[in-house]
Amino acid sequence: MKIFNLIEKVRAKKPLVHHITNYVTVNDCANVTLGIGASPIMADANEEAADIAGISQAVVLNMGTLNPRTARSMLIAGKAANLAGAPVVFDPVGAGASAYRNETAAALISEVKFAVIRGNISEIKYIAGLKSETKGVDAGEGDIDSADGQNIAKSLAKRLDCVIAITGATDIVSDGEKTALIKNGHSMLANLTGTGCMCTSLVGAFVGASPRAPFEAAVCAVLSMGIAGEIAYEKAGELGNGSFRAALHDAISKLDAATLEKKAKLSEA
Amino acid sequence: MKIFNLIEKVRAKKPLVHHITNYVTVNDCANVTLGIGASPIMADANEEAADIAGISQAVVLNMGTLNPRTARSMLIAGKAANLAGAPVVFDPVGAGASAYRNETAAALISEVKFAVIRGNISEIKYIAGLKSETKGVDAGEGDIDSADGQNIAKSLAKRLDCVIAITGATDIVSDGEKTALIKNGHSMLANLTGTGCMCTSLVGAFVGASPRAPFEAAVCAVLSMGIAGEIAYEKAGELGNGSFRAALHDAISKLDAATLEKKAKLSEA
Amino acid sequence: MKIFNLIEKVRAKKPLVHHITNYVTVNDCANVTLGIGASPIMADANEEAADIAGISQAVVLNMGTLNPRTARSMLIAGKAANLAGAPVVFDPVGAGASAYRNETAAALISEVKFAVIRGNISEIKYIAGLKSETKGVDAGEGDIDSADGQNIAKSLAKRLDCVIAITGATDIVSDGEKTALIKNGHSMLANLTGTGCMCTSLVGAFVGASPRAPFEAAVCAVLSMGIAGEIAYEKAGELGNGSFRAALHDAISKLDAATLEKKAKLSEA
Repeated sequence: MKIFNLIEKVRAKKPLVHHITNYVTVNDCANVTLGIGASPIMADANEEAADIAGISQAVVLNMGTLNPRTARSMLIAGKAANLAGAPVVFDPVGAGASAYRNETAAALISEVKFAVIRGNISEIKYIAGLKSETKGVDAGEGDIDSADGQNIAKSLAKRLDCVIAITGATDIVSDGEKTALIKNGHSMLANLTGTGCMCTSLVGAFVGASPRAPFEAAVCAVLSMGIAGEIAYEKAGELGNGSFRAALHDAISKLDAATLEKKAKLSEA
Repeated sequence: MKIFNLIEKVRAKKPLVHHITNYVTVNDCANVTLGIGASPIMADANEEAADIAGISQAVVLNMGTLNPRTARSMLIAGKAANLAGAPVVFDPVGAGASAYRNETAAALISEVKFAVIRGNISEIKYIAGLKSETKGVDAGEGDIDSADGQNIAKSLAKRLDCVIAITGATDIVSDGEKTALIKNGHSMLANLTGTGCMCTSLVGAFVGASPRAPFEAAVCAVLSMGIAGEIAYEKAGELGNGSFRAALHDAISKLDAATLEKKAKLSEA
Repeated sequence: MKIFNLIEKVRAKKPLVHHITNYVTVNDCANVTLGIGASPIMADANEEAADIAGISQAVVLNMGTLNPRTARSMLIAGKAANLAGAPVVFDPVGAGASAYRNETAAALISEVKFAVIRGNISEIKYIAGLKSETKGVDAGEGDIDSADGQNIAKSLAKRLDCVIAITGATDIVSDGEKTALIKNGHSMLANLTGTGCMCTSLVGAFVGASPRAPFEAAVCAVLSMGIAGEIAYEKAGELGNGSFRAALHDAISKLDAATLEKKAKLSEA
């Protein structure tokens, strides 16, 4: 199964992944990027955003803790990566929660060509122009059971010409033509801060190693996060959040194609 | 014992707790907020501070790593929460250590109505207008044994009409009328960065779930931190700081009313 | 062996170490500073950089996530520490990766007198004015095997009149006269974000406790990091990155002079 081997491409190519991201979960993002075999660099100054994007194999823009200075750097880095041909991944954290986030997300989407956008269902619904029930940075409960996640992902992917990944109990990844459903993962992942951000960083690592296969890269990244969550829960979930977190980083750093293939609950929609 | 049940209210209500806090310990703050059953959102842009405060059940302002932009957001968020009737919690990290921190603390106290202020004895003495021996962000040794902690807490609580929580070997919580003493905790908590900040985040979670009982909420939050520290020490303290930290997050995520009741060393002053 | 006892001086004196550092690894830096027995304070506002530097026993400047505001604070804090006679330690993270980092590093070196500069071989080669193959924040592979690391360290130490520490498979510490080689450590340290930054923070702790012996302080700090990495690997390396990280913090917090002496692979060049 070719898709599972994309993890070996990450470990072989060690893509440099430029992050402009939030300061809450940045350490976990750097550590999962290293854990999956890529190399993270975090740099958010206007003065160097283009330089750093220009030497990177992928750029991750995450608006978890936004301010005018970093929002401007996101635009600069995104455009520089577009020019250089490096894929750009967007995590619209908290889209729908404030006018400022909404305007920033809109500006980024209109000025930067994204390879992949990953969010929870509330964030993606907001991006798609639909009414959403976002609760801060978590998905609203009324949104989670929405049966139309697949349609939203598919039509938004077509409209923006990029891969859309909606993560939740069932993850949905669509490029507008193909749509994959992933039933891996564990509910305990929602009890740790940053598991969404980490998933986006994994997408950056995978798409940096496989820039011409953004759909497959996103599927394999989302799969990796879910399966690592399952392995971590089996090992340490009963102990509590701190042990689960360490086990999650253990699992990501130990993941390989064979494990992905064995554990994947992947289907086509 | 009604006070211990406040933890169940946090887990049932899952209050959204808006933090404007430092980047050193922010990840631990987000994780304890999740661990105790609430939902954290960190947002420090001037442009969205009022919006985010307006959708939150509590606001936590922590001046650990301050700058003019975030200080301004603290004022905006604090006032917005005051208007909306959501409780605001203040952690005057390092008060006394620089003129800038002192001025910022004074401005916040004069313009925002706080529900709870939590600090170490040096910080609270400084806020109370007393000479203190703060050593950076840790309490000065000459301050720690001060027998007049209870009087300081009580009179400052009266003056500012808010709950004052002084944490240390013995924690003191006072609303000016009632004063509680808590002898839980473990000295090893001082060997980890951010255990004070995490305690303040727990106060935010508890007071967000029980906004009309800020004294009881603060007592139960401080108790939770201390008891989690004891449980973590029993489990992993001998192993060193890294294991102790993971065990602390485990303990917070597993805490319940029965455990609090069994282990509380709580008395009235 | 006097050098190993410097760790006991850190634990006895508990120097306050002011950090202006990046938000990716700042929590680990604070925790290793506490773990080794010192006291960290992170403060990057222009408004308080001089005040905080003025009460500290050492200042650590780390340019991992730089912006004009924090770069200015680095200059302010560095100069204030120079005036006060407190040692200043520099970590030129990512030097060579962008024009902005290069200019900032040059400005800091020309305006601040450093006690110790610690970096990987690519960063130090860049600082020394040599062509380097830096890959983001990691050393370039063409640089790592460079046999002339010792010469670079020695001549740069002479030129800048400070201690140069190059960390890698073999660590090199030179003050221009004496040069020490350290063969401790484990390759798994490169799989965690921030182990370089943590090493620099340890240098800050050691040099804050022993300001008149910056060479010995830097040697003992680098030794401590390497030996802690070995102990952590033995204990938890097989489990993966998360467990290794916790074990690394355990090891640092448990380190003592006897362990350093027993495990040191230290030689004179």
